[in-house]
Amino acid sequence: MLLLKLNGYLELSDNLPKEAQSELKAFFDDANEKLLKKGAPRGKESEGAQVTGWTLKDDRVELQIISGRYVRAHAAILRLSNSLSELLGEKYHVGVRKAVATDYQIEAELEKEPLEPVTLPFTKQLKIEDKKAYITMVEMDESELKRNYPDRLLRRLEEKIAAQHISGKAEFTRTIERSNKSLQKYKFREDPTETALKLGWVKEFPGAGIWQIMPPYAALIRAIENMVVDDIAKPLGFQEVILPRLIPLDVEMKKGHLGIANEIIWACPPISRDPKEFEEILDYVEITGTPPVELLQKKLRPPTFGLAYAQCEPFYELFAQEIVDIEELEKNPIKFYDKNGPTWRWEGGGLKGLERLNEFHRIEFVYMAPPEKTIEIRDQILEKAKTMIDKDLDLEYRIDATTAVYLEHAGITEEQKEEKEEFVKTYDLTVILPFETQSRPEAELEIASFHVHTDFYAKRFHFRDKTRKTVYTGCVGIGPSRYAYVNLIRHGFNYDDWPQKIKKYIGDKLPEVPHTVTWPKK
Amino acid sequence: MLLLKLNGYLELSDNLPKEAQSELKAFFDDANEKLLKKGAPRGKESEGAQVTGWTLKDDRVELQIISGRYVRAHAAILRLSNSLSELLGEKYHVGVRKAVATDYQIEAELEKEPLEPVTLPFTKQLKIEDKKAYITMVEMDESELKRNYPDRLLRRLEEKIAAQHISGKAEFTRTIERSNKSLQKYKFREDPTETALKLGWVKEFPGAGIWQIMPPYAALIRAIENMVVDDIAKPLGFQEVILPRLIPLDVEMKKGHLGIANEIIWACPPISRDPKEFEEILDYVEITGTPPVELLQKKLRPPTFGLAYAQCEPFYELFAQEIVDIEELEKNPIKFYDKNGPTWRWEGGGLKGLERLNEFHRIEFVYMAPPEKTIEIRDQILEKAKTMIDKDLDLEYRIDATTAVYLEHAGITEEQKEEKEEFVKTYDLTVILPFETQSRPEAELEIASFHVHTDFYAKRFHFRDKTRKTVYTGCVGIGPSRYAYVNLIRHGFNYDDWPQKIKKYIGDKLPEVPHTVTWPKK
Repeated sequence: MLLLKLNGYLELSDNLPKEAQSELKAFFDDANEKLLKKGAPRGKESEGAQVTGWTLKDDRVELQIISGRYVRAHAAILRLSNSLSELLGEKYHVGVRKAVATDYQIEAELEKEPLEPVTLPFTKQLKIEDKKAYITMVEMDESELKRNYPDRLLRRLEEKIAAQHISGKAEFTRTIERSNKSLQKYKFREDPTETALKLGWVKEFPGAGIWQIMPPYAALIRAIENMVVDDIAKPLGFQEVILPRLIPLDVEMKKGHLGIANEIIWACPPISRDPKEFEEILDYVEITGTPPVELLQKKLRPPTFGLAYAQCEPFYELFAQEIVDIEELEKNPIKFYDKNGPTWRWEGGGLKGLERLNEFHRIEFVYMAPPEKTIEIRDQILEKAKTMIDKDLDLEYRIDATTAVYLEHAGITEEQKEEKEEFVKTYDLTVILPFETQSRPEAELEIASFHVHTDFYAKRFHFRDKTRKTVYTGCVGIGPSRYAYVNLIRHGFNYDDWPQKIKKYIGDKLPEVPHTVTWPKK
Repeated sequence: MLLLKLNGYLELSDNLPKEAQSELKAFFDDANEKLLKKGAPRGKESEGAQVTGWTLKDDRVELQIISGRYVRAHAAILRLSNSLSELLGEKYHVGVRKAVATDYQIEAELEKEPLEPVTLPFTKQLKIEDKKAYITMVEMDESELKRNYPDRLLRRLEEKIAAQHISGKAEFTRTIERSNKSLQKYKFREDPTETALKLGWVKEFPGAGIWQIMPPYAALIRAIENMVVDDIAKPLGFQEVILPRLIPLDVEMKKGHLGIANEIIWACPPISRDPKEFEEILDYVEITGTPPVELLQKKLRPPTFGLAYAQCEPFYELFAQEIVDIEELEKNPIKFYDKNGPTWRWEGGGLKGLERLNEFHRIEFVYMAPPEKTIEIRDQILEKAKTMIDKDLDLEYRIDATTAVYLEHAGITEEQKEEKEEFVKTYDLTVILPFETQSRPEAELEIASFHVHTDFYAKRFHFRDKTRKTVYTGCVGIGPSRYAYVNLIRHGFNYDDWPQKIKKYIGDKLPEVPHTVTWPKK
């Protein structure tokens, strides 16, 4: 059941004479018969739209329209606007300037009842009773009606209620594989962050979750990065690209990241490049010796970029509006990797250990291919990553099938429907730890994840095959920052004990930390 | 000539009885003789401070103080506050709650007359006449007086006037060395950006001055990066570190970057990690299909980080408050390099070519040593960088001595005083081009710069030698993004024509750009 009641008006370019009344009557009577039923399935004409009242007042035609599911009331007023414009233009040289819905109500049957209160934007009133929603929208102008705000509001309402019926990610996690137990081999039984600090391998930086990484730890991170390139990227035919780190708002939106804006750090350029505009800031600093935070805030543009969160955002944008050839992609899938510096997730200001960071390193694999091929590429990377963790780094691990990343990264929760799915969208590779980390009450750390996005991003970024066959994308994130951390737990700080594979990249000995009189603390 | 006139009051913790009048009189008479002259040089006692009037009103002692250069009026009121507190505490159990300068005027002789109007913060009125400044400050409380705001205001005024007398950077530039002319060898006579786009070596990204870098161009940038590491960093004993890219406001301030806030992109974390707080944003996106920029802005904290501009900011912070051993540094200077991804400068939204970017790659060398040693290290890097440009890349270049970077990066202009200086603080290495770039009316591009900071950052970040000998720092920035660009101009897009040194890192052939139906344009 769907009932739409629209009160609104058409604004004309000039007053109409009284005698136009009779023409208008004929027009609306006819529209109720034909124009406002067109498109409704046979037998469902009553669910089309109907003008239930109208009044001509100077240069306005006030209207009341009701409709059901077919030819919705806002589509109806737009049809009337076009059609009337033709009629009046010919006879009176008067056009329709705009269509406005001053008061627009939706009554709709819901699939589910909400579990807690729901809010909607562009809404004056929202009432839900007995699985029925009553929405009164704010005044909507023509462009808003054209862009289907009323339908989108209803869909958003259904989505938000559905989300309430679904709990967190954990429920969808299903373990696929577990390695042998090997925690007894681990050198550390506790978080090695303190030791790393004491040895000067890292030093605190005033930002939480952001560290100064000194030569030995940098060497370890780079060695792991090189291993990933040499043992995974190159053998599988991935080519390096350099993906931007400042992601424009529009790309963030298409990626779905405005749904997780709470986890992203946003970037604001200055309002001007003219130093004069910023003179006050330096004045303030020179007098007070403290940064004028609020003054600086006033001198910035609104958020213009998000700092790269997923690392692969630019990959989909690269193909926005392009047409690809799926047959070519079957032979030569697009396979890139990126290691262009850190990415960022806002984990909050209370981070303490080296395992979870606001600024961290990841090698990101991105690929595009036909569906089967995409799954195959993802599985090949997973296989090689597993070997690295198992054979080279000798860690205890687990592989889980879990919530599709493309939904999670768009702030969308989904219902459990694994049975219906023919393949796993996301695998997580998690290393088992002999202690609970400082950031979460878990004795484990996810260190890589492996994804197939189906055609989710192809649709959102508007790229397609030339024959409209399905194009899949996928990505894999492998995190050297976390690999380095778990390597310390497993093999300790003594270079002699490290795996041969890592030492191959570093050489005879680890680079040293410079010593000052006061640091590192003896 | 300096004349300070302070009207203010001391607020007491309780009313004083009338009979305290006589004690106060004795106190102020005595203070005028001794307390407010203490510290003034012999014979200059008249330039100390003097209480010219006072009134007791309930719990307030209102005061008029004048002073010259010695024992400035704001220091005087603080001395009186302490001293009176002792006196009244003993006898009446009354303390002094606070000292306030309600009306505080400075009359000071200036070194130079301003060339255009000057503004000052914390100032009600500023008048300049005949090389004399008359400043009336806003009301100042005790903590502001203690932090010497009045002195700092005067110093800031002198600085701002001095800056007006100095023009831009160009004037201080002096060419030290010019290579032979070799523009005739260059493959390109015009900006190669269009060709790079057409070949798909780069692709536009919605942010100006930020590009998607595809396999062949990424390979070139990485090859140059590796050359710099192998031929400069390693032979000179530099170790890799990973320096953070999010620079907290306090570090930005110490670095001097609040003086160039107009060139920095600032980062704001979300106000909360709670998705509920951000629900409206996704609601808005789902209904309208556009990003709600202002709504997002409201959900962000004030600027918390600057995006790394100089790349070396964290290096100085690493040693903040530490004590180093200059003898140890003579033997083992600290020598690090960083290639942890891009850094950012806000060059504005109109960038068009690949030569000047908002997001770009640089290898940053940072070092700390005694003065002579620091200069020597800088000069060694310059020598090797020159060889690379000259012999390996075969480019026409110029080396200039120019404004010290540590001043430029703090928004400070300095007077020309090269004659007085015993060594050059900054060298720029500039490649000569056969055309004017799109970003500046210059047929050249600066591609690296080489700096000695003297003890500028040691002072600002508060680190020092254990015996208080002078500690110098320096940095060098070498930009693979720009090296790659000039390599294209010199050697073109045909891999066979490239220098052997670069090809060594890439292999038999360049990686290819994937081709879609619509891109790269044929």
